[in-house]
Amino acid sequence: MTTNQPKEISSDGSFKRQTNRFTNPFGTNDGELPVESGRYRLLWSPACPWAHRAVIVRKVLGLDGAISLGTASPMRPAIGRVDWAFSLDENNQDPALEIQYVSDVYFNADPDYDGRPTVPVMVDTRDKKAVNNDYFHLTTYFEVEWKEFHKENAPDLYPEELRQDIDEVNEHIFHTINNGVYKCGFAHSQESYEKAYDELFDALDQMEDRLSSRRFLHGDFITDSDVRFFTTLVRFDAAYYNGFNTNRNLIREMTNLWGYARDLYQTPGFGDTTDFDSIKRHYHLSITINPDKTETPILPKGPDLSVWEVPHNRAQLSKQQDKFRS
Amino acid sequence: MTTNQPKEISSDGSFKRQTNRFTNPFGTNDGELPVESGRYRLLWSPACPWAHRAVIVRKVLGLDGAISLGTASPMRPAIGRVDWAFSLDENNQDPALEIQYVSDVYFNADPDYDGRPTVPVMVDTRDKKAVNNDYFHLTTYFEVEWKEFHKENAPDLYPEELRQDIDEVNEHIFHTINNGVYKCGFAHSQESYEKAYDELFDALDQMEDRLSSRRFLHGDFITDSDVRFFTTLVRFDAAYYNGFNTNRNLIREMTNLWGYARDLYQTPGFGDTTDFDSIKRHYHLSITINPDKTETPILPKGPDLSVWEVPHNRAQLSKQQDKFRS
Repeated sequence: MTTNQPKEISSDGSFKRQTNRFTNPFGTNDGELPVESGRYRLLWSPACPWAHRAVIVRKVLGLDGAISLGTASPMRPAIGRVDWAFSLDENNQDPALEIQYVSDVYFNADPDYDGRPTVPVMVDTRDKKAVNNDYFHLTTYFEVEWKEFHKENAPDLYPEELRQDIDEVNEHIFHTINNGVYKCGFAHSQESYEKAYDELFDALDQMEDRLSSRRFLHGDFITDSDVRFFTTLVRFDAAYYNGFNTNRNLIREMTNLWGYARDLYQTPGFGDTTDFDSIKRHYHLSITINPDKTETPILPKGPDLSVWEVPHNRAQLSKQQDKFRS
Repeated sequence: MTTNQPKEISSDGSFKRQTNRFTNPFGTNDGELPVESGRYRLLWSPACPWAHRAVIVRKVLGLDGAISLGTASPMRPAIGRVDWAFSLDENNQDPALEIQYVSDVYFNADPDYDGRPTVPVMVDTRDKKAVNNDYFHLTTYFEVEWKEFHKENAPDLYPEELRQDIDEVNEHIFHTINNGVYKCGFAHSQESYEKAYDELFDALDQMEDRLSSRRFLHGDFITDSDVRFFTTLVRFDAAYYNGFNTNRNLIREMTNLWGYARDLYQTPGFGDTTDFDSIKRHYHLSITINPDKTETPILPKGPDLSVWEVPHNRAQLSKQQDKFRS
């Protein structure tokens, strides 16, 4: 490796994701972020799996009224730095925050911020500052700390007696699958790529086995772990298989994973927050990932996405029909 | 489009393959290339589907003794022009012709040659000149004009009463499938890419249907058309699906095509001349196709190629077991 070591790439060529800058939790203790309806805006882009998980949980729990949503374009802006832009909005500005780029809220909070501006990020609308970009914990804050603003009969995605199991599975999924696909796609050496590839498909094989007898990762009900797994699965065949070289096989070739992914996709909050067009544009056309695509950008027409609507027949694995636990 | 219009790209962004420069036929008429054992050398690279078809027919017909074979590397040489190099051979030279690049035989034959030097090319070993690079007709020359040098009981890949049908299917396969994948992969506009993509998958759907009741394209026996179809099919999942954006679905997801492709693959002359490693290296790492891969070249580890050995169960479509007609 040269001295011009790219950010987030180790000397062995492997991808090391940056740590989050704003990790102050939501809660009622001194110094924690107070939970308050109407105060925060969640910024996301439909392309991003880390943001997608927060948007799914927000919708499933009915937090839409308490937390507003700003949507950045899936296409990286051509401004000489990695950023997200509100180019889908009128005047290229988020209508609530009146900012052009997601980085604005990072600089508002820390003028010296020199990481990648990422989504999801929770913004305090009073001063337009980023207050939390902790994608790993954000869904559990929504599930636990934001409970008073959940809709009536909102499901419990993080039941107390399962929390240890959920945390363990989440940790495993994060390293091998959620971030695993990025470790494949952003690897700068053949060795680090192949290591990530092997870990990824070992983990997927384990999950394929686990889901042979369980409808969802922790049994009959959808939990936080399923949300996290879903956002990678739903991008796999349309983006990662090609763009990140995760091509041992497609998810739709793995019987249990494919039925499980469709089961979730066909659940309110999941498929209706999935934007395949944005996902495809981001991973195939975005200059961050495919610098060679700038000259003659071609958006792959496939894969056939209608297959996501095919019945999944997974209900038979469950003791009851309701996928959510209230 | 700019005035720097790339070669073989039309003003609408579509790929227009160059015509062949050396098309003088083999035969016994005045001015035709005389058929003679030991006189010609066939140059190929295992990456190239157009050359692969000639190598399959040469092997199936037992022409190995009459026509020698020179093998170029699947990796384009970094010499500032598109070429094929004998970098797998000792001293980087073809041992028989003592040349470093395939272009040498083109320049020997025509010092002003300014097209892409292509394989397959038949070379007269006496003066090391390219004499025929007509990939479209080469297999039929082998089948008809080279008959006296076929092995004993060599199959008839081009039976007289089927020639019109074979020619029609070959022409259709050429435009929509063999060259169709290149029209997808080399398109310089979204429109021309999508047109080629639609034509390609329409043609594959037709073939999927055709092969539901026939073991091979023209019935119970392997013909020249099957050779031509095979060389594209065998590269599809490992190379074109990713590299050329032909990603509606994989071939192994199409029941009849996948059984048919395995049936051929498991036939002497087909699978044993298929070099998946070369195919993958060429399409994923070659700088001609992926200029962005030069900095951090990653060879995709997938797909799982062991699936090619799975039994095909296609023999039941045929009245007899022998795949070849003598």
